[in-house]
Amino acid sequence: MAIGILCSGGDSCGMNPAIKSFVDYVYANNETPYFIYEGFEGLIDNKIKKAEHKDVAGILHLGGTIIKTSRSKRFFETKYRKQAFENLQQHNIDKLIVLGGDGSFKGLHVFAQEFPINFIGIPTTIDNDIYGTEYTLGVDTALNVIKDALDDIRDTSSSFKRAFVVETMGRDSGYLTAISAITSGAEICIIPEVAYDLKSIKTRLNKELEHGREYILAMVSEGTKKTEQIAKFLEKSIDIETRVIVLGHIQRGGNPTVFERRMAHSFIINAVDKLLTSSAIQNICVYTKNEFKFMDTTSVVSQPKQLNKELIKQIEFMTK
Amino acid sequence: MAIGILCSGGDSCGMNPAIKSFVDYVYANNETPYFIYEGFEGLIDNKIKKAEHKDVAGILHLGGTIIKTSRSKRFFETKYRKQAFENLQQHNIDKLIVLGGDGSFKGLHVFAQEFPINFIGIPTTIDNDIYGTEYTLGVDTALNVIKDALDDIRDTSSSFKRAFVVETMGRDSGYLTAISAITSGAEICIIPEVAYDLKSIKTRLNKELEHGREYILAMVSEGTKKTEQIAKFLEKSIDIETRVIVLGHIQRGGNPTVFERRMAHSFIINAVDKLLTSSAIQNICVYTKNEFKFMDTTSVVSQPKQLNKELIKQIEFMTK
Amino acid sequence: MAIGILCSGGDSCGMNPAIKSFVDYVYANNETPYFIYEGFEGLIDNKIKKAEHKDVAGILHLGGTIIKTSRSKRFFETKYRKQAFENLQQHNIDKLIVLGGDGSFKGLHVFAQEFPINFIGIPTTIDNDIYGTEYTLGVDTALNVIKDALDDIRDTSSSFKRAFVVETMGRDSGYLTAISAITSGAEICIIPEVAYDLKSIKTRLNKELEHGREYILAMVSEGTKKTEQIAKFLEKSIDIETRVIVLGHIQRGGNPTVFERRMAHSFIINAVDKLLTSSAIQNICVYTKNEFKFMDTTSVVSQPKQLNKELIKQIEFMTK
Amino acid sequence: MAIGILCSGGDSCGMNPAIKSFVDYVYANNETPYFIYEGFEGLIDNKIKKAEHKDVAGILHLGGTIIKTSRSKRFFETKYRKQAFENLQQHNIDKLIVLGGDGSFKGLHVFAQEFPINFIGIPTTIDNDIYGTEYTLGVDTALNVIKDALDDIRDTSSSFKRAFVVETMGRDSGYLTAISAITSGAEICIIPEVAYDLKSIKTRLNKELEHGREYILAMVSEGTKKTEQIAKFLEKSIDIETRVIVLGHIQRGGNPTVFERRMAHSFIINAVDKLLTSSAIQNICVYTKNEFKFMDTTSVVSQPKQLNKELIKQIEFMTK
Repeated sequence: MAIGILCSGGDSCGMNPAIKSFVDYVYANNETPYFIYEGFEGLIDNKIKKAEHKDVAGILHLGGTIIKTSRSKRFFETKYRKQAFENLQQHNIDKLIVLGGDGSFKGLHVFAQEFPINFIGIPTTIDNDIYGTEYTLGVDTALNVIKDALDDIRDTSSSFKRAFVVETMGRDSGYLTAISAITSGAEICIIPEVAYDLKSIKTRLNKELEHGREYILAMVSEGTKKTEQIAKFLEKSIDIETRVIVLGHIQRGGNPTVFERRMAHSFIINAVDKLLTSSAIQNICVYTKNEFKFMDTTSVVSQPKQLNKELIKQIEFMTK
Repeated sequence: MAIGILCSGGDSCGMNPAIKSFVDYVYANNETPYFIYEGFEGLIDNKIKKAEHKDVAGILHLGGTIIKTSRSKRFFETKYRKQAFENLQQHNIDKLIVLGGDGSFKGLHVFAQEFPINFIGIPTTIDNDIYGTEYTLGVDTALNVIKDALDDIRDTSSSFKRAFVVETMGRDSGYLTAISAITSGAEICIIPEVAYDLKSIKTRLNKELEHGREYILAMVSEGTKKTEQIAKFLEKSIDIETRVIVLGHIQRGGNPTVFERRMAHSFIINAVDKLLTSSAIQNICVYTKNEFKFMDTTSVVSQPKQLNKELIKQIEFMTK
Repeated sequence: MAIGILCSGGDSCGMNPAIKSFVDYVYANNETPYFIYEGFEGLIDNKIKKAEHKDVAGILHLGGTIIKTSRSKRFFETKYRKQAFENLQQHNIDKLIVLGGDGSFKGLHVFAQEFPINFIGIPTTIDNDIYGTEYTLGVDTALNVIKDALDDIRDTSSSFKRAFVVETMGRDSGYLTAISAITSGAEICIIPEVAYDLKSIKTRLNKELEHGREYILAMVSEGTKKTEQIAKFLEKSIDIETRVIVLGHIQRGGNPTVFERRMAHSFIINAVDKLLTSSAIQNICVYTKNEFKFMDTTSVVSQPKQLNKELIKQIEFMTK
Repeated sequence: MAIGILCSGGDSCGMNPAIKSFVDYVYANNETPYFIYEGFEGLIDNKIKKAEHKDVAGILHLGGTIIKTSRSKRFFETKYRKQAFENLQQHNIDKLIVLGGDGSFKGLHVFAQEFPINFIGIPTTIDNDIYGTEYTLGVDTALNVIKDALDDIRDTSSSFKRAFVVETMGRDSGYLTAISAITSGAEICIIPEVAYDLKSIKTRLNKELEHGREYILAMVSEGTKKTEQIAKFLEKSIDIETRVIVLGHIQRGGNPTVFERRMAHSFIINAVDKLLTSSAIQNICVYTKNEFKFMDTTSVVSQPKQLNKELIKQIEFMTK
C-alpha cells in the first residue's frame, strides 16, 4: 500500500521542502510516494501520480507548492468524498499526509471516519494559529520576508521625518505582526489579541518626537482592520507624514529559510515513521517543547490557539 | 570657497553612495565639503555642517539619505531664498550639488539667477523621468527591489491558478513598470504612455489559459490609476482568482546595487570636476550614450522625458 | 549599581540585536546600562561608557558587534583581572552580561570567584558547540548565509557536470555542516563526529551518476581538515570535475534573521531579569526544550556538547 | 530553416534569461528555435532538440544555463566539425546564436568558413574581457554577488581591528575587482593592468590607522596571483590581523539582476533580427555607447580588451 501527499488551503513556503523530504524519505523506506495535485479538488478529480526523485530535484529553494493547493467546497459533500476514496483505492493508497490548516484537518477528519484511511496532518500556514503546535510550516520564511521589507523601509525612513504603517497577514492571529514588531523595533503594534490605547500612545510618541525621534513604525495585523485608522491617527493626532504599506501576498513567497527546511524535514520524517508503524492513525503532528508529538484531530481543530503570554507581555509597551 | 551638497524631493537609493563619493572626492581635491541637511528647508534654516570622512563611513549599503531631504514650499518665496543665500555666504559656500528632480532644479535655477551661486544638479529619482538623461539615480536599485518582490510572488503563483496585479511607482512615467514587465516575463503591462485593449488581451489570455497557462502577471503603473480596473477585468472577464499588490515605498529602499553605486560615483566626479574648473556654471549633469555631459537647466526642466521607442515596442505585445 | 555588557571571542551575528535589547530593556527597568568595548581587553583598559538609546538605533540589521570583541591573553593574569575589577568599581558596575563562548565563560568564572561580581553568560558562537544549550547566538544567521551561498552554487551547477566541495566553519563541531547538508540536499557530509567510508560513497555515487546525476554537493566541516582529500577523491575516484569553495568569514556576517533577533531579545530579557532579582549569581543562560534556564558556569564549560543523535542519524546516509 | 542556440565556455548568469528571450522571440517571428545542449560537444554528439515555450517558463531567476555548456577539444578537429555540420543539416538549422567568449568565437569562425552557417556570437563571460563590447553577459550579476559578500564581510569587520583580502575572479582582466573596489570602498586594489607600490601603500595605511582606521579591505584579482602576498604584507608590514576570502564559484551563481535580464533580452533581439534579415552573416553582437552593433569575429578575437582609462584612474589611489 502506498502513501500520498496533498496540500490544502493557503500556500506557504514550507510546502516544497516538505514535499521533497516526503519523496526522498518514503523511497528510503522502500515504500511508494504519490502526489495528489490541487488538494482535495485534485483528489476528487483523480489527479494522482506516482512521485519520482526527479520531480523534487531543485525545489528546496522555491516558495509555494509544486503539487498545487486548493480550497475545496465539493469535499464537504459525501458523494465527492466517496469518489475521492475510490481514487485512492484505485492507486492502492491507504495513507495520507496533508499539509494544511484547521479547515483542511476538519474535512480530513470527516473523511477518515467514513473510509478506512490513515492520515497525519502537518500544520502548514503562515499565521501560526493552529492549536497544540508551537510552529506551523511557512512561519519562519514569512517572518524573514517581512523583515527584509521592514529593513528596506527603515532605510528610506532616514530621509524624511515620517511614519510607516505596515500591515502584515494574519486573519485571527497577531503572531506575525507581534514577532515582526519586536524584532524590527516598531513603536506601535496592533493585533487582535491585545487592546490598544491611542491616547497613551499619543503621549508617548509626542514625548519621543520632542526628544528627537524622526521615524515611527507601526505594525498592524490584517485581522484588526485598523490599518487606516492608525494611519489617520498618525497623520492627524501626531501630525507626521504617514505612508501605508500592505505587504500582502509577498509574505507567502520567498526562498524557504534553513529553519523552515529543517522543520519541514522533521515534520515529514516523524509523520512518515508514524504512518508506517501504526494502524488506524488519524492525527495531527505537532511541535512542542522541541519535540514532535501526535494529537487527536478533534483536539486540534476544536480549540483556538492562544498567543503565548510571554509574547503578549513583550509587545504591550507598543500598545499604549 | 567651499562646496555644499543637498538632497531635494523624493528620496532614492542612489543618494547615500553619491554623498559618500562627494565627501571623499572633494577632500581628495583639497577642497572642503559641506552637508546641507533637509534640502532647501535646511538651507533656509541654516542646517549646514562641514562634512567629515567619518560621517560617510559605512553608508554605501544604505538606502535613503543620511542628510535627509524635503519638499520646500518656502523656497518659492524670495525672502527665504535670500535667507538661504546668506546662510551659504556665512559658510563661504559658493558651489552647490543638488540631488533631486525637475521641481528641485526649477527652484535652483531661479535661485542661481538671483544670487551668485554655481551649481550642478544630479538627476535623482526612481522614476527615470528627467529629460536629457538616460539614467537618474535610484532607478537600478528600485528595479531590483521590484524584481525580488516579483520573484517571491512568482513562487507562490505555482500553488494556485491565479493572477497577480502588481502596481509599481511612477507618476507620469511608465519606465519602472515597463522594464519590470519585460524582465520578469509579465503578461500584461499598463503604463501611461501606451494605449491598451482589454478585448484583445482577453482573447490572447483565454487562448493561453486553454493551452495550460496557470499564472498571469499584470504590471500596472501607479500613474495610470488602472490597478483596480485591471484586477476587476481579470476576475470578471477572465474569471481567474486575482490578487492586487501595491509595492509602494518598498521601492525606495534597499541596498544600492553596484550599478547604482558606480553611477553615483561617476555623476559626483563629473559634477565636482566641472564645478571646480568652471565659473558661472548652472547646469544639470546628464548621462547619455555612455557619457556624462552638462545641459542647461532650462532645457532639462522644460521638456518631458519620452519613453524610448525601442522600449515601447518591446512591451506592446503586453498591451493587446 | 549598574549593569555592563561585553562581547568576547569570535564575533557572531546575534551580538548587535542582543546589545540593542540590552540597552532598551535595562532602561525600561530604570537601571543604567554600560558598554564595555573590546571585550576583556577593553575591560582591563577601562574602555567603559554609559550606553544611550541612540547608540543602538538602527543596529538590528547589522552583523558583527558595535562594541567590538577581543580574545584577551592578559585576562589570564591576576593583576589585569584586578585592574578590570577596579574599572568596574569606578563605574559602579557590579553586574555583567557577557556574550561569548566556553573560553570567555572560563575566564569570567575565575574573575567572579576573586571579586564580588554577578554575571550571566549568554552563549554566542556560530558553532553551536556549548554544553547545556540547544542554541547559541549567531547560528541561525550563519546557516542562512551558508544556504544563500549553496543556492547560488546550485544554480551554476546546472551548467556543467560538476562536483562542489564546500567547507563550512566549525572547529570541533559539525553542527553547521550537518544542518546545511540536510537542508540543502547534499550528497556527502563530512563532520568530526561521524566516520565516513569513501569506498561505499564511491559505490553509491557511481550508481547515481549512471542514473543521470549531474551534480554532487559535498559539505565538509573545517575541523575535519578533509576538504582537499574529498576534492581529490571526487576528481580521481569519481572522475568528475570538482571545485572547492571555502566559505570562511562570510559566515560571520549578514543581516540577523528574525529567529536570531528574537533569541537575542529573549536571552537578554531572561539574563537581565535574573541579574536584577538575584544575588551572587554567576551563571550561564541556556535554552533548552523551548525554555530559558540558568546553569552553573562549571557545568557548562567542563563538558563537551554532543551532536543530537537524531541529527547524526539524519546525515548518516551522506557518509557512506 | 531553423535557428539554434548553444552555450560555450564558462557559465554565467546571463545565459538563462538570454535562452528564454531566444525561444519567445524566435516564435514571435514565426520561426523555429532549437536548443543545442552542452555546447560544441553536444553539437558534435547531436544533442539537439526543438525548444518549447514550456522549457523556458520560470528560468528567468536562475543562474547558470539550462542547456548546459562545455569546453570542447574535439571541435578543433575537422572531422568533428564536419559531424557537427551534418547534425545541423539534419535539423534544418542554418543559423546559430552562440553565448560564449573569445575561445568559442574562434572555433565558430573556423567552422563558419568551412560550412555554410550563419552565426551571431553574444559575448558571455563574467570577466568583461572581450574586445569591442562594453558589456558581456553575466557581469552585472557577478558584481552584485560580490557586493553582497563584501557587505557581509564589512559587518563583521566592525567587531575586530582587522584586514580582509578578498580575491575575485578574472584571469587576465581586473574589471570585476576594480569595480568592486570602487563601489565597496576598498583601501587596496590589485589588478593585472595596474602596477602597485607596497611601500607607499604602507605609508598611507599606517597614517590612516593612526587616525583611527580599524578596518582594511583589499581586493585582489585572481589573475595577479598576489592574494597571499598581500595577506602577508598586511600581517607583517602593517601588523594587522588578516583574513583571506577567495570568493570562487559563488560569483558565477545568483539570481540575474534586472540589468542582466534586460541586456540578455536586447542582445537576443538584436542577434535574431540580424540573423533573420541578413545572409552570410558571421558576426559578434557588441554593445557600445548604449547601442548594439555587429563586428567581424576576427576583429573581436584578435585584440585584447583594455580596461577603460577612466576606470584605471579611479582605482589608482588604491594602488599606492
